[in-house]
Amino acid sequence: MKPSIPRGTRDFGAYDMRKRNYIFSIIRKNFELFGYEPIETPAIENISTLTGKYGEEGDQLIFKILNSRLHENQKKELLTKEFAKTLQTAYNSPELTNKALRYDLTVPFARYVVMHHHQLTFPFKRYQIQPVWRADNPQRGRYREFYQCDADVIGSNSLLNELDLITLIDTCFKELNVPVVLKFNNRKILTALAEMVQHPDKIVDITVAIDKLDKIGKEGVNAELSANGIDETAIAKLEPLLDFKGSNAEKVQILKNVVGTNEIGLKGIEEIEYLLNAATTRLKHLTLELDITLARGLNYYTGTIFECKANAGTFTPSILGGGRYDNLTGVFGLNDMSGVGISFGIDRIFDVMNELDLFPASIQAQSTTQILFINFGQHEATYCLTIIAQLRSEGIACELYPDQKKIPKQFEYADKKKIPLVCSIGSQEMESGVFTVKELQTGLQEKLSLAQLLQKLKR
Amino acid sequence: MKPSIPRGTRDFGAYDMRKRNYIFSIIRKNFELFGYEPIETPAIENISTLTGKYGEEGDQLIFKILNSRLHENQKKELLTKEFAKTLQTAYNSPELTNKALRYDLTVPFARYVVMHHHQLTFPFKRYQIQPVWRADNPQRGRYREFYQCDADVIGSNSLLNELDLITLIDTCFKELNVPVVLKFNNRKILTALAEMVQHPDKIVDITVAIDKLDKIGKEGVNAELSANGIDETAIAKLEPLLDFKGSNAEKVQILKNVVGTNEIGLKGIEEIEYLLNAATTRLKHLTLELDITLARGLNYYTGTIFECKANAGTFTPSILGGGRYDNLTGVFGLNDMSGVGISFGIDRIFDVMNELDLFPASIQAQSTTQILFINFGQHEATYCLTIIAQLRSEGIACELYPDQKKIPKQFEYADKKKIPLVCSIGSQEMESGVFTVKELQTGLQEKLSLAQLLQKLKR
Repeated sequence: MKPSIPRGTRDFGAYDMRKRNYIFSIIRKNFELFGYEPIETPAIENISTLTGKYGEEGDQLIFKILNSRLHENQKKELLTKEFAKTLQTAYNSPELTNKALRYDLTVPFARYVVMHHHQLTFPFKRYQIQPVWRADNPQRGRYREFYQCDADVIGSNSLLNELDLITLIDTCFKELNVPVVLKFNNRKILTALAEMVQHPDKIVDITVAIDKLDKIGKEGVNAELSANGIDETAIAKLEPLLDFKGSNAEKVQILKNVVGTNEIGLKGIEEIEYLLNAATTRLKHLTLELDITLARGLNYYTGTIFECKANAGTFTPSILGGGRYDNLTGVFGLNDMSGVGISFGIDRIFDVMNELDLFPASIQAQSTTQILFINFGQHEATYCLTIIAQLRSEGIACELYPDQKKIPKQFEYADKKKIPLVCSIGSQEMESGVFTVKELQTGLQEKLSLAQLLQKLKR
Repeated sequence: MKPSIPRGTRDFGAYDMRKRNYIFSIIRKNFELFGYEPIETPAIENISTLTGKYGEEGDQLIFKILNSRLHENQKKELLTKEFAKTLQTAYNSPELTNKALRYDLTVPFARYVVMHHHQLTFPFKRYQIQPVWRADNPQRGRYREFYQCDADVIGSNSLLNELDLITLIDTCFKELNVPVVLKFNNRKILTALAEMVQHPDKIVDITVAIDKLDKIGKEGVNAELSANGIDETAIAKLEPLLDFKGSNAEKVQILKNVVGTNEIGLKGIEEIEYLLNAATTRLKHLTLELDITLARGLNYYTGTIFECKANAGTFTPSILGGGRYDNLTGVFGLNDMSGVGISFGIDRIFDVMNELDLFPASIQAQSTTQILFINFGQHEATYCLTIIAQLRSEGIACELYPDQKKIPKQFEYADKKKIPLVCSIGSQEMESGVFTVKELQTGLQEKLSLAQLLQKLKR
């Protein structure tokens, strides 16, 4: 039987792990420099916690977990009551499944805040780096298991938080050396538009439709809008916004003309202008772009919306998303907890950095092991173990070849693993205490005492 | 609706995260010092990959994932064919579920080795630090989601690998300062015993029964043995082994007498003696104890078996397990790949260290943020942001209080989060460029320039 892994999932070998850990470490370091504290939540959440937060499309993509070990009477119940009905019923039956894999880190975070808010200090700034799962159709940059790196602050509605997050994004991508455009928008504008076209109820339909502009074009968007029962005149009112161009300042001007006196629209414009003015002077790396088509599928955003894309190469999916949510904890019974956060898509950042070859040469090396000790046999091996113990206690990563194989075979092992040095200790070296050390790259061979070897390795 | 999390799962706040990361970092560092390379595998594996590897009891504890989005015709199929039959059938129907959450890291590792063996260099030493899931009944030290930290070497049957792993265990627990007894045994002994009592087929039953000695006592074990069809005389032959005492050397002697000339038994004794002699001189911290009742439920062990328990406090569950498996990759079609590995149960190590209060004082601090800047209003805040950007670029973690709340409220935030310093920059300080900095613990208040502040923070 040939083994395989589920589609949309991946194995990561040592080489990829080093690259990924490089990204993780830079993001984690900056999360902490910016005052965010680490938390972790379970991969498994109650279904009731997750459903209804991501829109209908999202709910479809939640991986549900089969209940383990049912009681006999429950089984009968299910067999008769549930499975007699349609499969759909059985699928949603809590007796069959009441747990699911987390779909993102934001909703579990909101759940966490509600459950622990008595012990937390607000405004609460947390970061969280964990995998999430989505039963999506795998394609380039879209996986069924992928990591999210989230930073959120909850319990404060100050725009200084948005500003701090923009700076955080700027700092991380600058250090990662990834060319990035940060597109942003404000959900209040979209709400205003929905109001203005007399379809306040249809904001989700409208935003989801607008969100697809890049994919399905104007005609597509308009078709979807009218399919959602939005009439010609309303659609006409929206259309000019689908291709407004120019500098951010010019775009704001267009927005002002369209929004007119709509109250929530004006509030949205005010927020946009504040961030544009405050951020522009501080950004060291990012390109900031106001994008009215940016809506993001998620239902819970109420203010600023963020999205980052690589500014070079052929990789188009967004590599970061985020925004302001005024009442995500409300569904769990805790109101007046406005939050804002961002999520780095590190699997996609990994893809971008691979395509653009942005990883430093230092982590191109395959092995952390600095020196391999040749195994000449039981007696010599035992001697080597003592040397190895001393080197490791000095922080030097080293290995003894475990098997008494032919010497060339052992050198080949070091070569393949890109271990830079090989140390040969035979009976002669054991007597003299002077070891033969070979640099594989240069071929240079030296006779070194333990002290000299240690000195060489510490360099 | 009051939110909750599934039983057996946990949330980890910043304080616990710091303690857990302390354990992770020490284990990871030593894994790399010993030449193990990092890999990661998906949380989701095909059911066929997992089932049949952990014994019947284990298979029962595998969390299965409901297939997403079935095609209509599949649904009908299921409705008629499967769900007409018993629920058990439906439960195992691949149309209903073909994926599951990994149960440990060893089987996925074997699967990984088989799928990637053309790119790997053997002997292949890998470490893997990821969560696993088991639908077990939660109790003290037993969770449904927990982390494993595994180090394995595969493609070598040299006992030097066992020796290296014992040294690795010794080094990690010494650095963690956790008092530990390392119990070990050899599966070959158990095989020999099964042969000697004319029940070679019953080795699993026998080992599983013996494994329960601590829990159900001699009578319990004997009852279970005879329940498994092992006759009185056979049980009698085994009994002396259930309470053999003394030093490791004395135990080996008893073993020799019992095993007699049984070939595989003698091989097992040879391996045990080698490890005892080689390890004892090298151990700096561990207590090594030969324990014939140690069998571990897992089917795939064939040689040495490891298990660690805390040597102090009231926490009895094992905190590390491992052993030699001669042909785990065979089930996936790759033979002659003997491997040996260990798995640190960091959630239990965390519990032990909490009970024994073994975490260093340095990580008892709640916050990584070194200094909080008071928010006196838009104008002052904007000024602070520039200072903050400079401090962060120097590697100082700092925050601006995002809201223009009353000053005492802002100091309370720093106090609760255990942020050591608070910096107040009002209009006066902005003019003079000299800031007021207060140490919350001592109450000491200083006037510092940015340069002086930076100096103070770097100390």
